[in-house]
Amino acid sequence: MLTPLTIGTHTLSSRLIVGTGKYATYAQMGEALERSGADCVTVAVRRERLIDADGKNLLDFVDPKRYTILPNTAGCFNAEDAVRVARLGREILSGLENPGADWVKLECLADKRTLLPDPVETLQATEQLVADGFQVLVYSTDDPVIAKRLKNAGATSVMPAGSPIGSGQGVLNANNIRICLEYLKEGDPTYPVIVDAGVGAASDVAAAMELGVDGVLLNTAIAHAQDPLAMADAMRLACEAGRLSWLSGRIPKRLYATASSPEEGVITWQPN
Amino acid sequence: MLTPLTIGTHTLSSRLIVGTGKYATYAQMGEALERSGADCVTVAVRRERLIDADGKNLLDFVDPKRYTILPNTAGCFNAEDAVRVARLGREILSGLENPGADWVKLECLADKRTLLPDPVETLQATEQLVADGFQVLVYSTDDPVIAKRLKNAGATSVMPAGSPIGSGQGVLNANNIRICLEYLKEGDPTYPVIVDAGVGAASDVAAAMELGVDGVLLNTAIAHAQDPLAMADAMRLACEAGRLSWLSGRIPKRLYATASSPEEGVITWQPN
Amino acid sequence: MLTPLTIGTHTLSSRLIVGTGKYATYAQMGEALERSGADCVTVAVRRERLIDADGKNLLDFVDPKRYTILPNTAGCFNAEDAVRVARLGREILSGLENPGADWVKLECLADKRTLLPDPVETLQATEQLVADGFQVLVYSTDDPVIAKRLKNAGATSVMPAGSPIGSGQGVLNANNIRICLEYLKEGDPTYPVIVDAGVGAASDVAAAMELGVDGVLLNTAIAHAQDPLAMADAMRLACEAGRLSWLSGRIPKRLYATASSPEEGVITWQPN
Amino acid sequence: MLTPLTIGTHTLSSRLIVGTGKYATYAQMGEALERSGADCVTVAVRRERLIDADGKNLLDFVDPKRYTILPNTAGCFNAEDAVRVARLGREILSGLENPGADWVKLECLADKRTLLPDPVETLQATEQLVADGFQVLVYSTDDPVIAKRLKNAGATSVMPAGSPIGSGQGVLNANNIRICLEYLKEGDPTYPVIVDAGVGAASDVAAAMELGVDGVLLNTAIAHAQDPLAMADAMRLACEAGRLSWLSGRIPKRLYATASSPEEGVITWQPN
Repeated sequence: MLTPLTIGTHTLSSRLIVGTGKYATYAQMGEALERSGADCVTVAVRRERLIDADGKNLLDFVDPKRYTILPNTAGCFNAEDAVRVARLGREILSGLENPGADWVKLECLADKRTLLPDPVETLQATEQLVADGFQVLVYSTDDPVIAKRLKNAGATSVMPAGSPIGSGQGVLNANNIRICLEYLKEGDPTYPVIVDAGVGAASDVAAAMELGVDGVLLNTAIAHAQDPLAMADAMRLACEAGRLSWLSGRIPKRLYATASSPEEGVITWQPN
Repeated sequence: MLTPLTIGTHTLSSRLIVGTGKYATYAQMGEALERSGADCVTVAVRRERLIDADGKNLLDFVDPKRYTILPNTAGCFNAEDAVRVARLGREILSGLENPGADWVKLECLADKRTLLPDPVETLQATEQLVADGFQVLVYSTDDPVIAKRLKNAGATSVMPAGSPIGSGQGVLNANNIRICLEYLKEGDPTYPVIVDAGVGAASDVAAAMELGVDGVLLNTAIAHAQDPLAMADAMRLACEAGRLSWLSGRIPKRLYATASSPEEGVITWQPN
Repeated sequence: MLTPLTIGTHTLSSRLIVGTGKYATYAQMGEALERSGADCVTVAVRRERLIDADGKNLLDFVDPKRYTILPNTAGCFNAEDAVRVARLGREILSGLENPGADWVKLECLADKRTLLPDPVETLQATEQLVADGFQVLVYSTDDPVIAKRLKNAGATSVMPAGSPIGSGQGVLNANNIRICLEYLKEGDPTYPVIVDAGVGAASDVAAAMELGVDGVLLNTAIAHAQDPLAMADAMRLACEAGRLSWLSGRIPKRLYATASSPEEGVITWQPN
Repeated sequence: MLTPLTIGTHTLSSRLIVGTGKYATYAQMGEALERSGADCVTVAVRRERLIDADGKNLLDFVDPKRYTILPNTAGCFNAEDAVRVARLGREILSGLENPGADWVKLECLADKRTLLPDPVETLQATEQLVADGFQVLVYSTDDPVIAKRLKNAGATSVMPAGSPIGSGQGVLNANNIRICLEYLKEGDPTYPVIVDAGVGAASDVAAAMELGVDGVLLNTAIAHAQDPLAMADAMRLACEAGRLSWLSGRIPKRLYATASSPEEGVITWQPN
């Protein structure tokens, strides 16, 4: 029903990309991934211990034949570190014969407290990784100017945050996401823009998709829900719902159905 | 996966109830109903001409074997009129052997401009229809006190508006819906509360369900979308997504993931 | 600079009306009233003990020569009770030679938990008090239909709640306040509409006034602030600021200054 | 009543800083400045023609004995240009014996369409101007990481945008402003943080101040209001109101006054 999402040389049938961190067990993670409907999952190259408390290996639960693995540089706080970790991820994935060896989700964070992205280091790392042959999917703030600079630096996809990682607030500044879309899709309508981080509930995913972004990437909202498996279902459905809702052309907002002008026109001058 | 919704003696597998008005053609309506996944559809007893421009009958497109028809009193502006129309609907549906003959969606509107419900006439009509043996699903404002009075008058379900009919603004006052839920489900957790009216996009449906309501009723958002069929799909998915999201126990909202207190704690006193 | 506010036969220079409850001491209350700039204060006829812990009398701190006292029926949960209390207030104020003897702020609440107004009892009490010669300023929900019914019943001013009493949430449903203004000022532009209850901060007062209401009534936001006196200053200034802002004709909201259409136009159909 | 605002070596009695652009005439501008209560006004070094259609000189209407002039680099789209313009402003103001010769409001914009700041060029220009002895007040996005980098580069004040210049949307992302305050005031509580751009109405100013910022800078909201002079009054009052409201310690937000937990606690898990 929905067209696939093309990101560089990769084509995904689901527009939801999910992380693999923070689950109680790898078994739970494996089932949540399955139910999320994602065919691309992101794995932190450095942070994941790869072996859980029961001695299980993460990769036993993420079938590389089924999922395209998107290695990420979570836990990196400068460009140098991020570049090193990205290369390490490429090496590991090459050995697995997974198509994800040639791309990377770049995260260059400012500090451990807020986990906000550092635009300066991120930009520098993007340039280096692009030069190094990577397809770079770059985690960014929602600042449209930085987003455009990252695209100009060769990023395959820019992924603005809806709100801080793990904060569960959804898209706080729809205005910025709209301008990101204007900037990034100008003359290039298929350039993939993905909201990454901040989602808390299914309605956040749907609302993000209704802004016209191409996909949503999330992790904590599923992994830390009371019932991660049911939440994975919710997110799968919400992503499709939001995409369809965007494509279907929603009705305008009005004060009431027969009001002569849309709701927001009310704010103009009207002294009594 | 999801438990059915019980409203009085009726049990519905879908928590989305859709209207039949405002479609370009009955054929389009029939397909939109199908794709919405609803097993209950509401039909305006008085307003629907029942025969469209092509000479087709509405009921040729709403199989009474498949759908439970919920007759409604749209277009009634006082209690007397609404009661009369409800009885007419019962008569018609009895002839169709549809289980919907014993219930009614009560609308008593204040005026044609805003289509807002009139609480006083609505309350009076509820009392009369309950006395007359109807299971009354009553369209109401989001005022919790009126909602409680309607339940006390015997309504089978109270259906507060998210925003004015056809306005596409979603739930404008989540606070009121939360207090409605407190009032109506106190000591009676399965009492059905359904958001009726105001929905514009899929995310509105999901967000409404995430408040803990039991279902959503909508019409214009599908019928007047640019692509009603795809929007029907979107709404079906969003309703399930929102229900699952509510049941799954979402993560709390925080300023950032490691902030020591939830986001809204920030508003307390903090001079510098 | 600003025109006075006329409510029935009363004319007030300030558009802020404040309550007298919940202060630590009457002395603090007296100073807060002074700094709020209000020339009308509302006093609960029944609830106020009139004598505080130090043996002081409330009226020693509310100079009836300076303030017009607006007696209110706080603490009444049905029409009969409210009417009785209103009459008691008239008697007391007549003895004080205060002009406030002929009006009343009517509150008929649904329960002690939420302090939400009960529209049915409120409507009934309004009719009785109007018949009894009172100028009735009536506390209401933000439901426009109830607001219109209250005006039709003879209320001198309708005072919709921004949010529940003491909840500090400001105006939760600006849409409803706008429709209240449409209904109540249709053909009667000077009919006074006052937001009563729910205000938490100065910006809430300004935002309410920017909707075009004629005044704001508040109590808890000042009385329970950490520094009630400074908050009284804040509210005085915010009320004037909001009124002027409304009268001055604000700039429209746009995605960015040179965007071809206002911000909210963005929500229409735009598939890619 | 309110403490003055110290920015580097400058001390201002008003926390509202206003621009001088976009007025119908210099005479109107002069009166609006007066009524805004500002003692610091910002003047675009390059963009202002300095002579209006009537042959009047801007500086005839901005008494340099009364106002501290804050020269700004509006209209600059890269660091080199901005640095050149800043030096030009210093030269001009030195000749006027105005204290504003030693500081500058730095704007490095990305493009003429959105007027969004370019963080990369802005950072570079900040470093150069600081090295050149300027006190730099820097217009920035609301990205907390960029804000911290600008402070680390020596900026005297960081001035995050509430929303795009001239967009009239107020503070779109209060979360980001809060984290900016955390970052910039950590161990340095008097570091001045000023919301610059995006304000549309008086309530926007009050709401910004209630976040704990030290001041607000605006221009279009006054200059393009229907009645700029009355709007200048509104903004003066709103700025004081918001500051006092912040300092006074507002009441918490709750679902209703007696609810056992603050409103936002409602979002946790609660299946039925």
